[in-house]
Amino acid sequence: MTKLKYISGGVTAAKGFMAAGIHAGIRKNSIKNDLALVYTAQPAKIGGVFTQNLYAAAPVNYCRQVVERGTASALVANSGNANAVTGDQGVEDTLSMAAAVAAELNIAADQVLVCSTGVIGVNLPMEVIKAGIKAIAPVLSPDGGNDAAQAIMTTDTVSKEVAVEITLSDGRVATIGGMAKGSGMIHPNMATLLCFITTDMPINSAVLQTAVKYAADRSFNMLTVDGDTSTNDSMLVMANGIIGGKMIEENTADFELFTEALTAISIDLTKMMAADGEGANHLLEIEVVNAFSREDAARAAKAVAASNLVKSAFFGEDANWGRIICAVGYAGITLPENKTDMTISSDGGSITVMQDGVGLVFDEILAKKILSAKDIKVYINLKCGAFSATAWGCDLSYEYVRINGDYRT
Amino acid sequence: MTKLKYISGGVTAAKGFMAAGIHAGIRKNSIKNDLALVYTAQPAKIGGVFTQNLYAAAPVNYCRQVVERGTASALVANSGNANAVTGDQGVEDTLSMAAAVAAELNIAADQVLVCSTGVIGVNLPMEVIKAGIKAIAPVLSPDGGNDAAQAIMTTDTVSKEVAVEITLSDGRVATIGGMAKGSGMIHPNMATLLCFITTDMPINSAVLQTAVKYAADRSFNMLTVDGDTSTNDSMLVMANGIIGGKMIEENTADFELFTEALTAISIDLTKMMAADGEGANHLLEIEVVNAFSREDAARAAKAVAASNLVKSAFFGEDANWGRIICAVGYAGITLPENKTDMTISSDGGSITVMQDGVGLVFDEILAKKILSAKDIKVYINLKCGAFSATAWGCDLSYEYVRINGDYRT
Repeated sequence: MTKLKYISGGVTAAKGFMAAGIHAGIRKNSIKNDLALVYTAQPAKIGGVFTQNLYAAAPVNYCRQVVERGTASALVANSGNANAVTGDQGVEDTLSMAAAVAAELNIAADQVLVCSTGVIGVNLPMEVIKAGIKAIAPVLSPDGGNDAAQAIMTTDTVSKEVAVEITLSDGRVATIGGMAKGSGMIHPNMATLLCFITTDMPINSAVLQTAVKYAADRSFNMLTVDGDTSTNDSMLVMANGIIGGKMIEENTADFELFTEALTAISIDLTKMMAADGEGANHLLEIEVVNAFSREDAARAAKAVAASNLVKSAFFGEDANWGRIICAVGYAGITLPENKTDMTISSDGGSITVMQDGVGLVFDEILAKKILSAKDIKVYINLKCGAFSATAWGCDLSYEYVRINGDYRT
Repeated sequence: MTKLKYISGGVTAAKGFMAAGIHAGIRKNSIKNDLALVYTAQPAKIGGVFTQNLYAAAPVNYCRQVVERGTASALVANSGNANAVTGDQGVEDTLSMAAAVAAELNIAADQVLVCSTGVIGVNLPMEVIKAGIKAIAPVLSPDGGNDAAQAIMTTDTVSKEVAVEITLSDGRVATIGGMAKGSGMIHPNMATLLCFITTDMPINSAVLQTAVKYAADRSFNMLTVDGDTSTNDSMLVMANGIIGGKMIEENTADFELFTEALTAISIDLTKMMAADGEGANHLLEIEVVNAFSREDAARAAKAVAASNLVKSAFFGEDANWGRIICAVGYAGITLPENKTDMTISSDGGSITVMQDGVGLVFDEILAKKILSAKDIKVYINLKCGAFSATAWGCDLSYEYVRINGDYRT
């Protein structure tokens, strides 16, 4: 029944895209890949959403301008250094990265997207990066997607890729694939983290942007690992239109199918990030239904997913549902009457812990079994409206504190 | 020069107040005090601020009504059970607690304030509580303040009390003293935690309420331990006027002095709570100056104090100032231009880490020394307005996660 066919791959799954990932040496004391490049010979229309942080990094401000112009042929991204809060030098370094990539690929510098992730407030090691760009361009390959996905990782423990095929109404088959990084400093209401998606669909940039915003609001903007919104969060989508045929337009079945596919893979990447949240043992999915508005549903779901007390309780596998309802209560939503129901479930079973606004006595042994599963769902029925939303998060562990107590040095 | 004279004691420092704290048996497997009573034979005017949580506990809704009426003679508080999300039974139990205290003290039931703190969603053990109320009333004493302060503790590691004397313009000496509890589930923008303050000042309830709101906004509402706002947070002030003479009125030097004293002891209790934050090793004081508005200054300061990444970095004694500025950046403030300066200081020294919006290279060895101190101050100059605010918080440690992973069971 589903119209989405999952296939292997990431940013190079769609036709015409090549990618590479190498160890340029930006990260000291590590041999991990730290420089990624994505390229399409056929110029792409682009869409993008970005962090709302006031101290947005130089590459973010730069990419906003590229997205406004609407086209690009390449994307370069480094990990190990965020080039954020780096003043005029940071702006200059971003432009130098774009120029260096443009020179290697023989394209205009304004057709190069530039992203950085890593430590804040330190200037980029430009000699290392320039040498890296010279080294990476020749190894671009239609099979380079995973190398690139590894190069954008910071504290991620696994690379994150997904791809789907869709069949349009006229029989054309389009591919959408992407990669993402992010396991800390992730919080809703922003175009969180780094996510790069490519597609061979023919679509203009304004229509693409509509789909990107829709997908981001239902995926990355509903993800929280630690409540912090980075200076560098960016979601970028490149559409090179290489399958040909007519452009898809808004308010058509094909546009809906494309948006559905883009949203689905964004949610997949979101769940991969939540499951890989720094130090996480459990993936938490919080579904709020029958809220007064969609915004209320989203707020309530995100407040639960972001609560340190809720996250600590799930780490301890303790069915402390009082903390969950407490988080709903301070989310700032409209709730004319407390008739709330709550159910917690997993592969281990399901328990209703609250009914019509009052706590229930439940089987603690079953609760322990449910909470020992890796993936846990919390279902909250507010019974005061018709709007729903789902947020994702993870538990808060000793390991989160260890990772973040000593990240910079 | 200061007009406040610190003295020993807490809720029984002011004339005419008696208190007691006993182990009633509400907490299982513990011999800790869990029931507190405060009483003044001369009825008191009262002021109070409460949690804004939608699932506010039954005793909170009850106390709101008492504060609206404006007078009370007694306050009963239990730890070990929050009586929150307990439906009609919870409301009935609150009224029963008030009635039981009233019967013992021979006062009207509507003159009894009732507070609960502890686990959410479990009905109060009313037989234990009623027996406890019978046992506690006879041991009320002018020396019972510390027993009461211990009885309201939950995961607190130390009891929190403070008292000051002020001399009014006509030579009258008034005393203000209080106690508080709270080390988890504490977050700004709410009348956080439990705080009970008593005074022998003659002041009517409307004037008192003005002072209470002012003090709460500059103290408890600027405290964050974990970003969670409880169902039960309450600050209550009782003024029995026993020193006599004329009532203090708003817009007088005496009112200003009283408000200053109330704010000072509220800040003292706030700092005690931040320092005793669950698992905390460091007390963090975040001062934001020259913001566009007072609300902006408060938002920015609280965003920094609430950031898990900032808190983890301070746990690791890592001068990761990029995370601090990142939190300012997502606080939702107005900042026309990034000219921000930042200094981090403690008994160990002081370092400027950011100047005119750009990160500085600094002495890492000195930074480690500064961050190894117990009390750490962060000073952020936004250079875009004339408003300031200070927030308090603590670091995020393994111990926080341990405490909260297994609180309920």
